[in-house]
Amino acid sequence: MAGNTIGNIFSVTTFGESHGEGIGAVIDGCPAGVEISAEEIQKDLDRRKPGQSHITTQRKESDAVKILSGLFEGKTVGTPIALFIPNEDAKSKDYDHIADAFRPSHADYTYQVKYGIRDHRGGGRSSARTTASVVAAGAIAKKVIAHSQIQVGAFVSKVGDCSCELNLQSQISLEELIKISESNIVRCPDEIVANKMIAVIEQVKKDGDTIGGVVSCIIKNCPVGLGQPLFDKLQADLAKAMFSINAVHGFEYGSGFDGAAKRGSQNNDEFYAEGDSIYTKTNFSGGIQGGISNGMDIYFRVAFKPVATIVAAQDSVNTKGEAVEIKGKGRHDPCVVPRAVPIVEAMAAITLADHLLRNRTSKI
Amino acid sequence: MAGNTIGNIFSVTTFGESHGEGIGAVIDGCPAGVEISAEEIQKDLDRRKPGQSHITTQRKESDAVKILSGLFEGKTVGTPIALFIPNEDAKSKDYDHIADAFRPSHADYTYQVKYGIRDHRGGGRSSARTTASVVAAGAIAKKVIAHSQIQVGAFVSKVGDCSCELNLQSQISLEELIKISESNIVRCPDEIVANKMIAVIEQVKKDGDTIGGVVSCIIKNCPVGLGQPLFDKLQADLAKAMFSINAVHGFEYGSGFDGAAKRGSQNNDEFYAEGDSIYTKTNFSGGIQGGISNGMDIYFRVAFKPVATIVAAQDSVNTKGEAVEIKGKGRHDPCVVPRAVPIVEAMAAITLADHLLRNRTSKI
Amino acid sequence: MAGNTIGNIFSVTTFGESHGEGIGAVIDGCPAGVEISAEEIQKDLDRRKPGQSHITTQRKESDAVKILSGLFEGKTVGTPIALFIPNEDAKSKDYDHIADAFRPSHADYTYQVKYGIRDHRGGGRSSARTTASVVAAGAIAKKVIAHSQIQVGAFVSKVGDCSCELNLQSQISLEELIKISESNIVRCPDEIVANKMIAVIEQVKKDGDTIGGVVSCIIKNCPVGLGQPLFDKLQADLAKAMFSINAVHGFEYGSGFDGAAKRGSQNNDEFYAEGDSIYTKTNFSGGIQGGISNGMDIYFRVAFKPVATIVAAQDSVNTKGEAVEIKGKGRHDPCVVPRAVPIVEAMAAITLADHLLRNRTSKI
Amino acid sequence: MAGNTIGNIFSVTTFGESHGEGIGAVIDGCPAGVEISAEEIQKDLDRRKPGQSHITTQRKESDAVKILSGLFEGKTVGTPIALFIPNEDAKSKDYDHIADAFRPSHADYTYQVKYGIRDHRGGGRSSARTTASVVAAGAIAKKVIAHSQIQVGAFVSKVGDCSCELNLQSQISLEELIKISESNIVRCPDEIVANKMIAVIEQVKKDGDTIGGVVSCIIKNCPVGLGQPLFDKLQADLAKAMFSINAVHGFEYGSGFDGAAKRGSQNNDEFYAEGDSIYTKTNFSGGIQGGISNGMDIYFRVAFKPVATIVAAQDSVNTKGEAVEIKGKGRHDPCVVPRAVPIVEAMAAITLADHLLRNRTSKI
Repeated sequence: MAGNTIGNIFSVTTFGESHGEGIGAVIDGCPAGVEISAEEIQKDLDRRKPGQSHITTQRKESDAVKILSGLFEGKTVGTPIALFIPNEDAKSKDYDHIADAFRPSHADYTYQVKYGIRDHRGGGRSSARTTASVVAAGAIAKKVIAHSQIQVGAFVSKVGDCSCELNLQSQISLEELIKISESNIVRCPDEIVANKMIAVIEQVKKDGDTIGGVVSCIIKNCPVGLGQPLFDKLQADLAKAMFSINAVHGFEYGSGFDGAAKRGSQNNDEFYAEGDSIYTKTNFSGGIQGGISNGMDIYFRVAFKPVATIVAAQDSVNTKGEAVEIKGKGRHDPCVVPRAVPIVEAMAAITLADHLLRNRTSKI
Repeated sequence: MAGNTIGNIFSVTTFGESHGEGIGAVIDGCPAGVEISAEEIQKDLDRRKPGQSHITTQRKESDAVKILSGLFEGKTVGTPIALFIPNEDAKSKDYDHIADAFRPSHADYTYQVKYGIRDHRGGGRSSARTTASVVAAGAIAKKVIAHSQIQVGAFVSKVGDCSCELNLQSQISLEELIKISESNIVRCPDEIVANKMIAVIEQVKKDGDTIGGVVSCIIKNCPVGLGQPLFDKLQADLAKAMFSINAVHGFEYGSGFDGAAKRGSQNNDEFYAEGDSIYTKTNFSGGIQGGISNGMDIYFRVAFKPVATIVAAQDSVNTKGEAVEIKGKGRHDPCVVPRAVPIVEAMAAITLADHLLRNRTSKI
Repeated sequence: MAGNTIGNIFSVTTFGESHGEGIGAVIDGCPAGVEISAEEIQKDLDRRKPGQSHITTQRKESDAVKILSGLFEGKTVGTPIALFIPNEDAKSKDYDHIADAFRPSHADYTYQVKYGIRDHRGGGRSSARTTASVVAAGAIAKKVIAHSQIQVGAFVSKVGDCSCELNLQSQISLEELIKISESNIVRCPDEIVANKMIAVIEQVKKDGDTIGGVVSCIIKNCPVGLGQPLFDKLQADLAKAMFSINAVHGFEYGSGFDGAAKRGSQNNDEFYAEGDSIYTKTNFSGGIQGGISNGMDIYFRVAFKPVATIVAAQDSVNTKGEAVEIKGKGRHDPCVVPRAVPIVEAMAAITLADHLLRNRTSKI
Repeated sequence: MAGNTIGNIFSVTTFGESHGEGIGAVIDGCPAGVEISAEEIQKDLDRRKPGQSHITTQRKESDAVKILSGLFEGKTVGTPIALFIPNEDAKSKDYDHIADAFRPSHADYTYQVKYGIRDHRGGGRSSARTTASVVAAGAIAKKVIAHSQIQVGAFVSKVGDCSCELNLQSQISLEELIKISESNIVRCPDEIVANKMIAVIEQVKKDGDTIGGVVSCIIKNCPVGLGQPLFDKLQADLAKAMFSINAVHGFEYGSGFDGAAKRGSQNNDEFYAEGDSIYTKTNFSGGIQGGISNGMDIYFRVAFKPVATIVAAQDSVNTKGEAVEIKGKGRHDPCVVPRAVPIVEAMAAITLADHLLRNRTSKI
């Protein structure tokens, strides 16, 4: 109810603040018998880790995860899996200037009014640092869905005005796509565009400014039948999952906003059979029909606004309602999307793991 | 869990199929003391009703709502409010041809696989007819949020390539905006654009085709503090609510997808105080910061794909996996957005009512 | 959240008041493919129906159930099943005297304070009439668990001081047990005791008084593994289900309160194997160990207080806080347990159906 | 869904196994502004701690709690409160003999079948050690309900055949009652009976056996209006909470099982007014009417079976289905009720905190 839990059967509760003891997650409802290791979780955490390249924030966190419960001899036993990531490099002094003032386009003001009290250090719970918990939980979700052969891969498709067009019907495998995008620091699968994106971010950083971007995600081998047809449509739960990520302002799947300009005769996906399987000739439906996966690739795009912390002075007010000027201190990312890639994957995997398990009860 | 319920405190469960006895909703958690009448609910139902103009489906449903429980002397008593809308004009014969075949871009195939059984008549539960239940429940949600002065208004901002640009900072009131948009059959607040949209839909209908569109929504007077900061961010729950509507493929709020191309220095909303209140100079945040409403207008856009039922023959397969040809029978809308306006409002109102009540427990 | 829903996967939401349009239930999460007929539901409703014998209330309700949704050609299709039972014999005038006064040991006072408004007619939502919805939903739950061979049977084991001792290890089948108990109007499987119970109730009725009792319930063929080990232990959810029935003041399973006086060496259930199956020599655990069913019979006892409505004048206060005298009008049962038997079965079946489905996700 | 969470608004998720890293809890939905200190939590943990007297298990755990998140300058900030208690004195070798065998009346067998895998060390998740997490969370719940003056106190009222009768209408305050019961190691408020109980437990321990008992609980100053009238009746949620405690086999409130033998004329609670307040002359309702608190004392009794681990050899089977003999190793309590007292209080406080917050939305 206070909204720190997502998922119905595969259920993830996160906790922790940017400058407290640490952050963590409790995964309840993970089926017994799944092999999990801290090393695997760490791999995804390292993809999200601050300080991983010169275009990310320079906060130094090893983000080393500890598994506190739920495993026995390397396997899940059906009990809650608690994960903990200690905070190491918190510099709370950097945030003294906002103890009584509100940074523009941050959560300082809304938290203050909602709760009447606020942990201002590093943004407290509103910090994107909390997404490390999500990535750790997502690594476990990926293991669950891998049992049904489902694969999730995300990459950066846009930074500022610089975007890569991807032919989703092409023969490139998801592994290859991700391999290329993970080979550059901006995580874009088109290397020429990747270099342009890096240049854009370097310029923005030099200017003390920030820039927005788009992360795209593809889900392969999703079985037919995932999703609940009314309010918990698969796309509805994916959308909610993505909008729960800090800075996300837009989500579209399949034909998305472009579909609004199209005719039915252009946008419909005709069916055909091949062997025992049914496919669609095109995939404007984005792998979901009537809220339920149809076995084709699920793909969607997630728009991130530019990070709110900038170096330039901005007008604001303090807790007394007096006008003040705020300048960005603290360490921050010039562009959030390269580090957002594993977060998008994690939220997608959590959503799929939940719906995969939910689907086990659709028939008697 | 089967996903026919939305909301945590203000909780709406819908039921019913397109060609069954009827459709309905149970609203649990509506606070006691709210005045409700069937007439008020009917007003919104009439805005969604089929056959309301020549650019909508010609199915004839009075959509007359009955209140079965939860009221005493015109007021809610804190018990569940059950609503029922009988089906009247179901023509199940029109759907005989899809008893064993799958309409392209419909839910026929996914339902068949998920459940192993399917009520094909009128699309059964996958029919957009189920949104009438939502509109009825939304009318009650509107009464709840009106106690906190919150107003919700939606309108059509795009049909095909034809779109109306709206200056949200203008002085036009929400009442006036809605009054204009409700004065034309396409529900667009710009009358010149409205006429173009109508022409587009008429042409599409003549062609036996369909067309997509966009519905925009504005929420005024939302108090500061609504939304839960992690997974149940206000935008996340609004997004989920919108994606639960049939045919929705995109959602953006505030600067949305455009924000992905912007710099922080362009996109940040500086604060200022006026009297006891705090405002932002711009509103690229779309009234939500850190997942919590900040008191400014909340606004968002919802993209609808074109209706899947078209007159032209399309390739498909039947339940045996054999190739078949499907032609659209049954009555359908050439463009869904004019009737989707009250649905978008309803889902927004339900989401707000829930968060309004949830926010009562944020402080001791 | 307002508590009119029970169950996580197999989820039952009820609605309706004693003197409103009617009462009903929406069952969400019933798997597709279950055969359901109104006739089967009616059978259980008839066992709960008022006016079924001279020892029950004389309110005349046919309690004829209508299925509004969720079925296609006699089978569930995975969509919500809405049930409605119209009210027929409401005599609201009988309750005019309590529009502004509080009946002792009824819910009048607590509803008034909690909601600030109250539908006093027949007790409104607090009436035991709402349990008809539960019985109807339970009939569907019984069909679900029957697919796993689970059987539920309840009977009256105590009325006032008059009780029947039952040897649960005896060879009598559950069908036979229920057959005998259903053959007499008090629903006791010991015919000699049954006659004594009837005499007690007749005397109590003659005195204008009421009497309490105990309903016992046995669950046979429950597979091993139902129940979640921490908070949602099978016994915890059974207990909650039973205490949700009006007038219930006690619940015990297995060795129950007697176990508090016993030693471990007397109370432990030793295991033995027979063929491929594992059994316990005794069953003081009541079929549940560590919150999870162990395959042995589950059995429990539910204590009902005497009905609060009596003919004698009682002291009370009105809504102004003035002293008043209240005499029982309205029709009521002298003893609730004979009609409570199908309610106990229904709540047990709903709990089991939910846990049966929940158990499908315990392993990868 | 996997049942490691309890509560809707004030929501407690626990994790951890007996011999893993440790155990803990995440409390979500605690309102902002509540003063919390580790010292206060520790006080209740020390009451539950093993090794506290010669009549409890000799496992040595300091049960020192760490607060990992959710506080700022000693107050809750509305974010999740994570608590962690490291395991210190786990002796896993003591449990080698049950790695492949099932202890009678323990959860070994049911876990093995349900999950196909089992952490046998110390009983894993089925160990009563997990109740330390509950006690820690309950200490926070007590702070929340103390803001509304609600007090919770529990004590031992029965051990074996030895019970203390308490006149609940007496003038003794709850503080005094608890002070006396906490002054002896068995936690009974009648010192003469306490000594008898201690003697019983000493004898049982000497015999290598165990004994059951009853914990009674009183809730004072509960405001009118807590509880949801249908499935989430206050007594239903209290019952569920109590049955979630290991070894509980019975629960009754108010007149309880005795009420089943009474007449309405004996059991009804007549109302009277005094000043602005309304009271009942008697309190057989146990402070709850129609599922909602009526402002009178809430009181209930919880029956615990004898601990299953005994020294004597018992018949059992192993995972291959072969007959084996099991003797109790590991350290265990001869009688669980003295240490169960703070657990009962904790579960009651958690239930009340949740319903207190839920009640904030009953009226518009």
